[in-house]
Amino acid sequence: MSSSSKPEGNMLWGGRFTGGLDPLMVKYNESINFDRALYKQDILGSIAFARANAKAGILTSQEFELMEKGLRDVEKEWETGVFSLVPGVDEDIHTANERRLSELIGKQVAGKLHTGRSRNEQVVCDMRMWLRDELRTIEKHLVDFLGLVAARAEREIDLVMPGYTHLQRAQPIRWSHWLLSYGLAFAADLERLRETIRRVNRNPLGCGALAGNPFGIDRDMMTKELGFDGLLWNSMGGVADRDFVTETLQWGAMVMQHISRWAEDLIIYSTAEFGFVRLADAYSTGSSLMPQKKNPDSLELLRGKSGRAFGHMAGFMMTQKGLPSTYNKDLQESVEPMLDHVKTVSDSIQIANGVLSTLTTNADRMRAALDPFMLATDVADYLVRKGVPFRETHHISGRCVAKSEETGIPMNKLSYEQLKAIDGRFEEDIRDVFNYDTSVERRTAKGGTSKQSVVEQIKVLRDMLG
Amino acid sequence: MSSSSKPEGNMLWGGRFTGGLDPLMVKYNESINFDRALYKQDILGSIAFARANAKAGILTSQEFELMEKGLRDVEKEWETGVFSLVPGVDEDIHTANERRLSELIGKQVAGKLHTGRSRNEQVVCDMRMWLRDELRTIEKHLVDFLGLVAARAEREIDLVMPGYTHLQRAQPIRWSHWLLSYGLAFAADLERLRETIRRVNRNPLGCGALAGNPFGIDRDMMTKELGFDGLLWNSMGGVADRDFVTETLQWGAMVMQHISRWAEDLIIYSTAEFGFVRLADAYSTGSSLMPQKKNPDSLELLRGKSGRAFGHMAGFMMTQKGLPSTYNKDLQESVEPMLDHVKTVSDSIQIANGVLSTLTTNADRMRAALDPFMLATDVADYLVRKGVPFRETHHISGRCVAKSEETGIPMNKLSYEQLKAIDGRFEEDIRDVFNYDTSVERRTAKGGTSKQSVVEQIKVLRDMLG
Amino acid sequence: MSSSSKPEGNMLWGGRFTGGLDPLMVKYNESINFDRALYKQDILGSIAFARANAKAGILTSQEFELMEKGLRDVEKEWETGVFSLVPGVDEDIHTANERRLSELIGKQVAGKLHTGRSRNEQVVCDMRMWLRDELRTIEKHLVDFLGLVAARAEREIDLVMPGYTHLQRAQPIRWSHWLLSYGLAFAADLERLRETIRRVNRNPLGCGALAGNPFGIDRDMMTKELGFDGLLWNSMGGVADRDFVTETLQWGAMVMQHISRWAEDLIIYSTAEFGFVRLADAYSTGSSLMPQKKNPDSLELLRGKSGRAFGHMAGFMMTQKGLPSTYNKDLQESVEPMLDHVKTVSDSIQIANGVLSTLTTNADRMRAALDPFMLATDVADYLVRKGVPFRETHHISGRCVAKSEETGIPMNKLSYEQLKAIDGRFEEDIRDVFNYDTSVERRTAKGGTSKQSVVEQIKVLRDMLG
Amino acid sequence: MSSSSKPEGNMLWGGRFTGGLDPLMVKYNESINFDRALYKQDILGSIAFARANAKAGILTSQEFELMEKGLRDVEKEWETGVFSLVPGVDEDIHTANERRLSELIGKQVAGKLHTGRSRNEQVVCDMRMWLRDELRTIEKHLVDFLGLVAARAEREIDLVMPGYTHLQRAQPIRWSHWLLSYGLAFAADLERLRETIRRVNRNPLGCGALAGNPFGIDRDMMTKELGFDGLLWNSMGGVADRDFVTETLQWGAMVMQHISRWAEDLIIYSTAEFGFVRLADAYSTGSSLMPQKKNPDSLELLRGKSGRAFGHMAGFMMTQKGLPSTYNKDLQESVEPMLDHVKTVSDSIQIANGVLSTLTTNADRMRAALDPFMLATDVADYLVRKGVPFRETHHISGRCVAKSEETGIPMNKLSYEQLKAIDGRFEEDIRDVFNYDTSVERRTAKGGTSKQSVVEQIKVLRDMLG
Repeated sequence: MSSSSKPEGNMLWGGRFTGGLDPLMVKYNESINFDRALYKQDILGSIAFARANAKAGILTSQEFELMEKGLRDVEKEWETGVFSLVPGVDEDIHTANERRLSELIGKQVAGKLHTGRSRNEQVVCDMRMWLRDELRTIEKHLVDFLGLVAARAEREIDLVMPGYTHLQRAQPIRWSHWLLSYGLAFAADLERLRETIRRVNRNPLGCGALAGNPFGIDRDMMTKELGFDGLLWNSMGGVADRDFVTETLQWGAMVMQHISRWAEDLIIYSTAEFGFVRLADAYSTGSSLMPQKKNPDSLELLRGKSGRAFGHMAGFMMTQKGLPSTYNKDLQESVEPMLDHVKTVSDSIQIANGVLSTLTTNADRMRAALDPFMLATDVADYLVRKGVPFRETHHISGRCVAKSEETGIPMNKLSYEQLKAIDGRFEEDIRDVFNYDTSVERRTAKGGTSKQSVVEQIKVLRDMLG
Repeated sequence: MSSSSKPEGNMLWGGRFTGGLDPLMVKYNESINFDRALYKQDILGSIAFARANAKAGILTSQEFELMEKGLRDVEKEWETGVFSLVPGVDEDIHTANERRLSELIGKQVAGKLHTGRSRNEQVVCDMRMWLRDELRTIEKHLVDFLGLVAARAEREIDLVMPGYTHLQRAQPIRWSHWLLSYGLAFAADLERLRETIRRVNRNPLGCGALAGNPFGIDRDMMTKELGFDGLLWNSMGGVADRDFVTETLQWGAMVMQHISRWAEDLIIYSTAEFGFVRLADAYSTGSSLMPQKKNPDSLELLRGKSGRAFGHMAGFMMTQKGLPSTYNKDLQESVEPMLDHVKTVSDSIQIANGVLSTLTTNADRMRAALDPFMLATDVADYLVRKGVPFRETHHISGRCVAKSEETGIPMNKLSYEQLKAIDGRFEEDIRDVFNYDTSVERRTAKGGTSKQSVVEQIKVLRDMLG
Repeated sequence: MSSSSKPEGNMLWGGRFTGGLDPLMVKYNESINFDRALYKQDILGSIAFARANAKAGILTSQEFELMEKGLRDVEKEWETGVFSLVPGVDEDIHTANERRLSELIGKQVAGKLHTGRSRNEQVVCDMRMWLRDELRTIEKHLVDFLGLVAARAEREIDLVMPGYTHLQRAQPIRWSHWLLSYGLAFAADLERLRETIRRVNRNPLGCGALAGNPFGIDRDMMTKELGFDGLLWNSMGGVADRDFVTETLQWGAMVMQHISRWAEDLIIYSTAEFGFVRLADAYSTGSSLMPQKKNPDSLELLRGKSGRAFGHMAGFMMTQKGLPSTYNKDLQESVEPMLDHVKTVSDSIQIANGVLSTLTTNADRMRAALDPFMLATDVADYLVRKGVPFRETHHISGRCVAKSEETGIPMNKLSYEQLKAIDGRFEEDIRDVFNYDTSVERRTAKGGTSKQSVVEQIKVLRDMLG
Repeated sequence: MSSSSKPEGNMLWGGRFTGGLDPLMVKYNESINFDRALYKQDILGSIAFARANAKAGILTSQEFELMEKGLRDVEKEWETGVFSLVPGVDEDIHTANERRLSELIGKQVAGKLHTGRSRNEQVVCDMRMWLRDELRTIEKHLVDFLGLVAARAEREIDLVMPGYTHLQRAQPIRWSHWLLSYGLAFAADLERLRETIRRVNRNPLGCGALAGNPFGIDRDMMTKELGFDGLLWNSMGGVADRDFVTETLQWGAMVMQHISRWAEDLIIYSTAEFGFVRLADAYSTGSSLMPQKKNPDSLELLRGKSGRAFGHMAGFMMTQKGLPSTYNKDLQESVEPMLDHVKTVSDSIQIANGVLSTLTTNADRMRAALDPFMLATDVADYLVRKGVPFRETHHISGRCVAKSEETGIPMNKLSYEQLKAIDGRFEEDIRDVFNYDTSVERRTAKGGTSKQSVVEQIKVLRDMLG
């Protein structure tokens, strides 16, 4: 190792080491490439900490003012893109900001910034503030998307299409009913998100390295200044707890799972064979080889990225498993998944919004895909209304289906005599059963696919947006 | 395939199939081996459904009464262990119960039970009721465990031990502080659990196969009878949504992750080398080969089962990824992980309780493991109080550490002259710094390890138990 | 705790403990409910160990004979179903077998069985033998399945259907080409399986608890008797290594992932909208509510169980992460996932075989789904053969597609003049391009969809079956 | 959307789209930010493809020469850092290289490059070549690391330390035995790696978009030129198969799991309480708050990154689950995990090498940690040699342990009378049992901890390096 890799004088622990660092180890260890995303939170946290230290008598008010001004200047350097990292020295954002502060205001005062503070609490303060802000933005994207779902469900309420179970045609439903089935799942995501944000937004400052702060720092004051909802109540937990990341990753992995199913449906509905919907060109791409292709790349990426989001969660849970308590360097592995996860989920909700807002529906293809067998339950229900036990009506209707398959005559075209031969209780009004719109309108119980029930669902969804 | 494997007359869809079933396929498909756990919920759900159907005019009151009595008789058969499954016929708990009901009250009335109902909604109704009840039991176990943590933290507040970061001795802490660091993590689990239960406890009955109920069934009435907190508002979502399982599995995987870290700490603390705690014989086992061994098997199983719990979650999320909407048979794979997960988490919390309530602490070993280097931060803080910038005091204290290592003299035994030579600002009162109890008591900020802060944390924890 | 829960005299470590066991802890700790599956391997391993101990002079030949006979008698009890477990005493299969042996031949000789042996090596010996045997059975199932794929690909080579990318119609292919695309993926699974078996089938006996055997036992002799392929070469690794389980779980999770994709294709192909294939009744089920339904439950279970298999792997990898070396009780969590995984994968391959062997194809629906746009690449290639750069031909063909969409005239019905107007280089022979069979037959390069290339693939596949 | 986001003329599918792209969608879709890592493989693949097209008569030899020269020039631009990406146009490396080629040699010839080729095969060709090369580099790092393990095991063969099971002191072992327990696990990783490379290194070129190549391209010729070990034999599989990524991720996740356990042991061994080893400063870091700290950050990062590596695997398996066959855009999600995984594993093996090569052992602390109870098995074995059944000797030795605990006299200091009182068969030579070195040397069976057995293991390990 060359002499230049000797430990730098301004590494935070610099007083003691005599050896050097393996250059690969420097890279393996440093986090500046990703934690620079937290520069602003790091500065705001430092100002709040300094202010509280001033109140505690650690800093004079002049020292604090100088420090605050210096930190604001560092912030401006980041914002204007002139902050210059020193390779091999600025190993993380905390070191970088403090190094620069020292240059700007001198070591005598800057050297007091970290009094009673540990990087352990600082890292996690930055992460929590950043994540809280990002999750609030995602909340807005989600509300927008749900507003779109509600609006589209309202506008296209008259479209009737096949409902599937097992991907086999089951019963006629409204397209809006399908939209709302996902809408309500995403609304539960919104509810969970709001609960999660409350747990993310807790203040670790004042926890020290693990044992607490020995200078009587006023943690409530910092909580207020930084907009936290409350304290982390145990200093050991405060520095080691990454549950706020795990919970976010679990949350996002579930959102993306919903998106994967939503995308799967739409990919199938946009095949030539189904043809219910057509993606806008803006969300499709072509093929480098096949000139006719128009591929639903946006939906496939949405579906595929559910894996990426799950991987963040699974990977970081693995990292934490069986760790001894308090801070271990393993926890540095929380930052990158958090950053990429938030971006993945945020982008995906916006792309889903774009896809849905530009998607065109094909009412004719939807209706053409309805087939009379989808009314077999209605046939059974018809006899139920005449007092026949359902188990028996189910068998009778099954025999009508069989007769239709055997003769090749669509079930709704079977003659009255043919039906009567199957069961004597069929009467002329069985004809009325063979109507898809009537079938849909019969499902009037709450949550059903009748118009009134769907309208009620739209209201329920909108009420959840808050 | 033998003729005996021809479809049985009482299979629910029996009217139509002409082929038989591969015997392995019968096994691969059936769920009775595990969903029998839901027998009681299945019966209660059927009674509520029948009552609502009676209100809707589908059943006469006599029919309903006969049906209710019959279902109660089936329930009794299960409870007394006399219910006899018919192999190859009772493929799931729903079929089994209805088959038996038919035998008891006749097909004419029993055949009306399923009117307007689908197994899709029935399965998920049973699961939600079962899970809600189990989670409420787990809630109680968790409250008990946290009560124990609080009690023990209160009683053993005077024990001082090394606090570790990176598993290296860091600063002295109270044993109670360690206890509470986990206590507050588990308390957050409790908070999340309560939120989860509210989402689990929603009523799917009345959703039909996917499109809703065509007989105007009163879903609110069933919600009330079955003790649900509210409706599932979209019938397609109602039958397909297994997020209540996923959310539970995510919740439990996080609880078990906390347990894995708690167990890891205690396993390390119970080594011969640390020796801070000793497990009761009831939670240890010996070796078949080595007579002296006393192994912390309970803690290792707790730690190991964090993998099992994670596997449930990861596996079931995989199952759901990219599924088309509404019911697909893939969702049958939700039941077994749910059952085993609930058992794993419930047992584990109780075992953790047993371990903690019988664990003995060794105050002498704890104190013996404190070493003067753990006061290096206090030495730095001493100079901070004399106005030296922290960055400088950190280096000075580092030089004291180096001097001690170099000379082999414990840091607290370095002579005043030796310290003075390192930095002229050391004064005689530096002696007072070398006291572990004083060090602990200095951490008075909220969340710190001083007695008053720990007492406050105990109160915070107890307030969360509700 | 009642006195009855005092440690039993024949627990293996019985000489030392003075406390009792929490009844829940007994359950939490014991493995007999699942490791009884290994009873036979446990007995064979014990016989081999005893024989080697006899050679080493630890047992006389009379003692060994008595022991072997006793163990064979225990085996018979298991096989005839008369082995009776003693609750709370027979905590695992090893204890149970030895307890019973003691009863049959007396403690004086039975007490020598475990000389120099640890349960650590015994557990893993049983597991490896069991797994090796099971994997060899799975190997046979996989070879059978691949034989079926090859046979069906050969027989139905003339079926032409749409090939999809992005689930959009792309180019015409042979149905056999589709079959073989999965066939070769499963053949790679077969190759990996054979490699895995070699690593599973290694002998841990003679490793002791961790440090090795102190009686000079002949490990090679046991290796030979038990049919192992070689030794585990380090005793600490020998008892702690569960990589043979992990590797099996990784292997199975990949097989199931292939199955999930294969099933997904077939589920889509068996929708009403695609209609390319129809499942046999034996692998379908109906609906409890909808009389017309015929659902591909077998395929959905196959797809869904890919999650279960993944969960085994993910869970057990979590269990092992960060474990200290050698045996920790956490490793007990390896047995259940192994047992269930092997069953899941084995059943699934057999079910897939059943599905494929009874599936009917619909040549008419396949052909009807071909549309002229699928020949757009052939149109571009036509011009390439006339010397036009491909990038240009791709654009020209794209304009033909656009013209067809715009005019509503199928691309193969556009007049020669219309085509000529798009590009002057089109000549009369462009007509010949609009032929699906010709298109397929043009793909003659190795691995393509021409008949000759497909026949070659069938040969390649068969050669891999060995 | 601004007019500037209209589709660019040189997007590969440019001829047909009329809409624009959402700017976020452009970002969401493009891969150039990461797949630029494959620039070199992309160029080599294009040269081989062009050469084969020249042989097939698609290109004249002049055209090919021009094209090859142009591609080499593009390569040089990348290598010298002058290649300039066009934002929003160069969406992936394939487009970028072809765009640049067109600029350098003109569209007339460059436009022929892609004849009969699809991005589907191109992407996967680049990935496979890149991965093959990287895995071969990792193979070298692994061989180096294992060479170090062997060398260190040889040199420090005389160090005796406690062997642990359940993290409780079990039996004395050689430090080299510990080293080799991991060495052989890593050697199995090496074996698996070599098998994996063979499957990675297969040629997809000539597969087209999915149906094969229609110009009779010579795939074997390309295989040879690009150094592949063989063909992918089915064109649909060829473009869709990402098992080579999955298998690599599974492989790497297992390697990292081994590293996580190795690191865990060393972290524990480097605590103040154990003190068996001491990390070099180059692989440690200090604390920003606590001057005395020297933390094993390198080992913690190694352990923590096992989560990251697992996350890659778990995430990408999720992405693939249930995908319809052939290419779907979801598969783009294979590239980033592959790139980061390879880097993570490669760096980690090198860091582990650095840690191990600079680690110092502390023979005194190791020996001091041996305690007489660790010889309890030897005491039992002593009586075995006198003919007492092991089960009885195990109990007797357990009573010696109990007596020692009860009296506070170390077991090896119990008087002969005390031992005799426990069992009359103890004789004077029991003294000789209480010797750690003798205990170690008794484990002479293959794989044991005696010197001769350890030397044999070193040879076995070296033989595996090949």
